[in-house]
Amino acid sequence: MGYITYRESGKKAYVTLNNDRQRNALSRAVLEEFNQVLGEIRPRRDLNVVIIQAEGKVFSSGHNLREIGGQPSDEVLELFNVCQTFMLGLQRLPQVTLAKVHGVATAAGCQLVAACDLAVASRDAKFATPGVNIGLFCSTPAVFVSRNVGRKKAAEMLFTGDFISAEEALLHGLVNRVVPPEELDAAVEELADRVARHSLSTLEIGKRMFYKQLSMDDASALEYASGVITLNSAHPDAVEGIRAFFEKRPPSWRAEEGVKQS
Amino acid sequence: MGYITYRESGKKAYVTLNNDRQRNALSRAVLEEFNQVLGEIRPRRDLNVVIIQAEGKVFSSGHNLREIGGQPSDEVLELFNVCQTFMLGLQRLPQVTLAKVHGVATAAGCQLVAACDLAVASRDAKFATPGVNIGLFCSTPAVFVSRNVGRKKAAEMLFTGDFISAEEALLHGLVNRVVPPEELDAAVEELADRVARHSLSTLEIGKRMFYKQLSMDDASALEYASGVITLNSAHPDAVEGIRAFFEKRPPSWRAEEGVKQS
Amino acid sequence: MGYITYRESGKKAYVTLNNDRQRNALSRAVLEEFNQVLGEIRPRRDLNVVIIQAEGKVFSSGHNLREIGGQPSDEVLELFNVCQTFMLGLQRLPQVTLAKVHGVATAAGCQLVAACDLAVASRDAKFATPGVNIGLFCSTPAVFVSRNVGRKKAAEMLFTGDFISAEEALLHGLVNRVVPPEELDAAVEELADRVARHSLSTLEIGKRMFYKQLSMDDASALEYASGVITLNSAHPDAVEGIRAFFEKRPPSWRAEEGVKQS
Repeated sequence: MGYITYRESGKKAYVTLNNDRQRNALSRAVLEEFNQVLGEIRPRRDLNVVIIQAEGKVFSSGHNLREIGGQPSDEVLELFNVCQTFMLGLQRLPQVTLAKVHGVATAAGCQLVAACDLAVASRDAKFATPGVNIGLFCSTPAVFVSRNVGRKKAAEMLFTGDFISAEEALLHGLVNRVVPPEELDAAVEELADRVARHSLSTLEIGKRMFYKQLSMDDASALEYASGVITLNSAHPDAVEGIRAFFEKRPPSWRAEEGVKQS
Repeated sequence: MGYITYRESGKKAYVTLNNDRQRNALSRAVLEEFNQVLGEIRPRRDLNVVIIQAEGKVFSSGHNLREIGGQPSDEVLELFNVCQTFMLGLQRLPQVTLAKVHGVATAAGCQLVAACDLAVASRDAKFATPGVNIGLFCSTPAVFVSRNVGRKKAAEMLFTGDFISAEEALLHGLVNRVVPPEELDAAVEELADRVARHSLSTLEIGKRMFYKQLSMDDASALEYASGVITLNSAHPDAVEGIRAFFEKRPPSWRAEEGVKQS
Repeated sequence: MGYITYRESGKKAYVTLNNDRQRNALSRAVLEEFNQVLGEIRPRRDLNVVIIQAEGKVFSSGHNLREIGGQPSDEVLELFNVCQTFMLGLQRLPQVTLAKVHGVATAAGCQLVAACDLAVASRDAKFATPGVNIGLFCSTPAVFVSRNVGRKKAAEMLFTGDFISAEEALLHGLVNRVVPPEELDAAVEELADRVARHSLSTLEIGKRMFYKQLSMDDASALEYASGVITLNSAHPDAVEGIRAFFEKRPPSWRAEEGVKQS
């Protein structure tokens, strides 16, 4: 352990990659530590936002190639299974995830940005899926990258392996905001606080629905969403929220006990 | 009745939300009136474009929360079923739909913009899916919003509840044009007229195909589209259109009798 | 034959539409010639990039309407089947395809740009799906256009039939770069060379995976991609690429023998 540091502030959790010497590689040990941290965050009803960030010169350079090159296939597959558990785990977390990106985010590091719900980048950040440079196509990063940016831009990143700038990442939908380096902290706090003020139950209901409906056809998605919002309307936080709205006062979310997963 | 006013001009129908006092809420009564209006427009072979607009300070603030807060679940579900019929009805209309947006478009009002085929916004318009603010996640608006704008921007709108400007809506694909308030009328007319000059049968064939193929894989979509365009090529309006093209004259669409739905 | 000219330079193939007199129409003869050319390129392990370009005033005006207007339905369907084979063939090619666009790209010509993996356009290029003007909705072009640009913009192009500029095509994701006419050659070479330097096996593995996963839900796509990247990691070019990375030298791809298709 010790590749990740963890702290909390109010309803925000900060998970920090802390292995600058290895360019914050997502080695199997790091991914397993990440999965353990997510497992501890998941049941926490007093946390709304998980900020994923890094210490050092880069955000993350992706997998540790020493765990792939020359390794037996079953171990490589197991590595990618652990990685898959992590990336899908971010999406399945009740809390909203926010990547705070500086330096470079490459390969699985870029995938991590794409897999988070939200992302804020420093103006000096760069993004790439450079596997093609070493004969190992960024197939797993391609999944979330191609669900963030358009087809042509995703193809360009994947087939050239070249970097895109933070501004391009913003234009193409890979990140939500780009700010000067000295404003990165404040911009992340500001966006995180916009989410942290809400009811976790509402965020959880919404986040699950959001990702689930994305792969449905329009009519199925609307049918599903109608059921979700109807159930949501009977939730104590919706009852309180609507009442507070009519009484022109801020809502007071009840102490959280969790939402049963279907 | 009386929440909606209706008028026609040439091949254009104008459906106007006319309940400024309730911020043009999409109450059940309004939605039912809307569904009736769409039902009357649907068989009309002399109308090509349906412009959806609003009188007063805002475009639409979404559902009437008094019909949701504290109401029995079966009534809430019925409300969302009526709403769903409306939103899908826009997509299933042979005519092309165009939202003309000023002021604010929030929640189901924002969904309405996203559900229309085209949208033109005044520069002062703002868009939000703010349900999370009151504990009622904008699950139903999420469906069409996430099919207009990218994943990261949709997540931001849904998880923060914050407004985006008209310029952002343009950049992210929620609207087709943004113009100064005093040019909104003209910009809508201009875009509507670009559609109104075409054959309704062609628009109908194309619109149905367009939405149906979106959820198919590439090969299935192309196979389906090839069948559609082949049938389309034998339609009298295509025969006339192609002939007119070769004779270097404007086409003369026949009087419309409707297209059989498959 | 003779509607298409073909040349090679290093790992790049140049397929040139050469029928300016007919505005580089994608007639059945041209499509069949194209399919034959693709069939010859497909097994070539010494080619990485296929540049599709045109001589004359326009890139391509799409189908030859004389082959559609007034023709028997079975012949029209056969034409669209040949066209479909071509468009899907581009996607199924191991090599990366790059459209080099000048002048106008309309209807199936616009579809061709959308179907290529990458596209570079001259600043004076224009794009349209104008079938609606002649009563023949651009149903087949709609498939790839709506998978490159957002829903609202695709609807606008299809329902109005109007041109969009190269800058708009860039903004909405239909092309990767827009450059002044005099820089088009250089920009295409530069982008093509960024791809040509890679291992064809890696490009092939990645390209097949990229398009296949696009229509899957997130979890299925990640599961599939994890299997692909694991297999990829055992490929000689990945073994060499990763070794070269650690030895801080450029990789030396082996002579290509092809990848077995699943």
